[in-house]
Amino acid sequence: MPAIVTLLTDFGTADGYVAQMKGVLLGLAPEVTIVDVTHEVSAQDVDAARLVLERCWRRFPPRSVHVIVVDPGVGSARAALAVSAEQRFLVGPDNGVLSPALGCADTRVVSLPIPPGASATFHGRDVFAPAAAALACGVPLEALGSPYENPVIRSTPEPVRQDDGAMRGEVITIDRFGNAITNLRGPAQGFGVWVGALHLPLRHTYAEVAPGETIALTGSSGLIEIAVREGNAARRLALTRGTTVMLRPEGPST
Amino acid sequence: MPAIVTLLTDFGTADGYVAQMKGVLLGLAPEVTIVDVTHEVSAQDVDAARLVLERCWRRFPPRSVHVIVVDPGVGSARAALAVSAEQRFLVGPDNGVLSPALGCADTRVVSLPIPPGASATFHGRDVFAPAAAALACGVPLEALGSPYENPVIRSTPEPVRQDDGAMRGEVITIDRFGNAITNLRGPAQGFGVWVGALHLPLRHTYAEVAPGETIALTGSSGLIEIAVREGNAARRLALTRGTTVMLRPEGPST
Amino acid sequence: MPAIVTLLTDFGTADGYVAQMKGVLLGLAPEVTIVDVTHEVSAQDVDAARLVLERCWRRFPPRSVHVIVVDPGVGSARAALAVSAEQRFLVGPDNGVLSPALGCADTRVVSLPIPPGASATFHGRDVFAPAAAALACGVPLEALGSPYENPVIRSTPEPVRQDDGAMRGEVITIDRFGNAITNLRGPAQGFGVWVGALHLPLRHTYAEVAPGETIALTGSSGLIEIAVREGNAARRLALTRGTTVMLRPEGPST
Repeated sequence: MPAIVTLLTDFGTADGYVAQMKGVLLGLAPEVTIVDVTHEVSAQDVDAARLVLERCWRRFPPRSVHVIVVDPGVGSARAALAVSAEQRFLVGPDNGVLSPALGCADTRVVSLPIPPGASATFHGRDVFAPAAAALACGVPLEALGSPYENPVIRSTPEPVRQDDGAMRGEVITIDRFGNAITNLRGPAQGFGVWVGALHLPLRHTYAEVAPGETIALTGSSGLIEIAVREGNAARRLALTRGTTVMLRPEGPST
Repeated sequence: MPAIVTLLTDFGTADGYVAQMKGVLLGLAPEVTIVDVTHEVSAQDVDAARLVLERCWRRFPPRSVHVIVVDPGVGSARAALAVSAEQRFLVGPDNGVLSPALGCADTRVVSLPIPPGASATFHGRDVFAPAAAALACGVPLEALGSPYENPVIRSTPEPVRQDDGAMRGEVITIDRFGNAITNLRGPAQGFGVWVGALHLPLRHTYAEVAPGETIALTGSSGLIEIAVREGNAARRLALTRGTTVMLRPEGPST
Repeated sequence: MPAIVTLLTDFGTADGYVAQMKGVLLGLAPEVTIVDVTHEVSAQDVDAARLVLERCWRRFPPRSVHVIVVDPGVGSARAALAVSAEQRFLVGPDNGVLSPALGCADTRVVSLPIPPGASATFHGRDVFAPAAAALACGVPLEALGSPYENPVIRSTPEPVRQDDGAMRGEVITIDRFGNAITNLRGPAQGFGVWVGALHLPLRHTYAEVAPGETIALTGSSGLIEIAVREGNAARRLALTRGTTVMLRPEGPST
């Protein structure tokens, strides 16, 4: 079975940077299946890329190689990493973007050498794509670099339990539909969601409210999100990354 | 030959929803060839997705599986469908988006069960991708669900013939170039196009007018469209979906 | 090994034009590996497409077929070309977009016939995709059309050496990050970059300046570019295609 190499960058496609990476990959590993995860991460938004990676890396079959290049520190002293975890591989900069795979029981990390002729501004093409091609061809992780301790870990902020039993969470990302995804886990029987003074009972699906109504529900990653059915919640409620969202026990119906 | 699975959604790529679907597909059917049709349909624009599907579904070879997820009713009682028509398969919600394949002589439709653990907000990952993987692997349509009668059909409005012999049509979509595509069929010898008071003779190709000039011609789907050579007709003429466009017999030249 | 066919267009993906090309390709050459280079070139921007092609065409392995459709003259008398150069193939309109491969020692060019039923507005689907499929299947270039002399060549303007030893260059493109890429070649020891009255010493990598600072450095294509670390240089300095950028010998430090 040909190995899968996925690409997750903030390059867009219009400038041909992604295409250069694809050319390098197919030149070194012609049988590889390339999968575009996305190239539309906001420029240099390491946390957004990390969240996308978290959602999808384990869904690809064992042996898949994920290449993540959101890399504001390219050319600096930041290390270039290759990671093995739960039968998948990841390749990318040591800036926290690889965090979803760094805390597994079997995580192994190596630091990739920067070849002499590598561009100081485009390690995606000159460092990460060749490393991914090698992994896809079966080269062992340890053959690619030397063991690396203490990679940078970035994590989604945890909700805070308050004295009154409420959970204080926040919006961690806004998706294309304007749904505001929080760091609060659902389903949460007997709890309701508050955004400022606005109270939203926790529902199961969009269809429980009429088009245009605001709703809170557990999204496809198990996180509580705030949505407007067939509308845009972030715009309507002025929600942005970091907006406080509360999960409070519902009182008895009155 | 590996089966082809195409993806047509309104998810964009930046949030990783499409990537999750790709991971599921490749996990279940590793030999499949995934083809992105588009993920840039406007959010929840079922008719736009239907028009894209209409343009391309038959152009893929027999056995191709088309996955269409523009699904404002996800989680409601709307059925999840798998369709066989003209040697291709389609998978998607019962909201009319599959209409281009629902009226064929050999169309068969089944309703897919929703597995117990499926997210109520993301059937693309938990219902449609697994069904597409099964079809790509040769599982018969009837093994995936039970026969389904009367799926929702949405259709492009038909032009209306007037008493004076003119055809009253409308703009059905605007493309990336600002070309306004109508529901009027061409070529139409001896007819001219009117938008309000603006008369446009029907031409064969952009090159018949100078750059910057407005033109009406038969586009690549056989429909009459209004364009500005090397410009944007929708913006110049304030054309939107639904704008009336008339096809009238040309009088003798005066 | 299956042949690779890459696609570079200004179609976007939302209208389904690219999908139609993919369907035609896979119908004619089912084993082909399709690679999206980009579909986000600005509408009808032949020079932008040419620069993307220049960056990537040689990075794909021998036998790759590059399909480039940025084609404002579709349907006019402009020729439709297929090109062989340095073991790769290219297919696209005769408007200069193929220039990166037209000046090689072994370049061969043929003119493709337009089949009778071809749409006058969509040669990507009806002329270029079938030609690419044929090349991917091993059909010789000369079997596809007749030899073609004097294809249109477009080239990036060359910098001009001034009497005082300075090089007068210009911005040739702005990338997604707001980096302004010039036609000046680096590295250039002992030289500094000027944009109007602003002097920028030539650096090696973004990391040599603090976030938010403006920098000049040699980018991944060997061209000098002006960037803002973790910012947008084009916006900050009002740089656009054509803005003059000077490379001047640095005086002795004072």
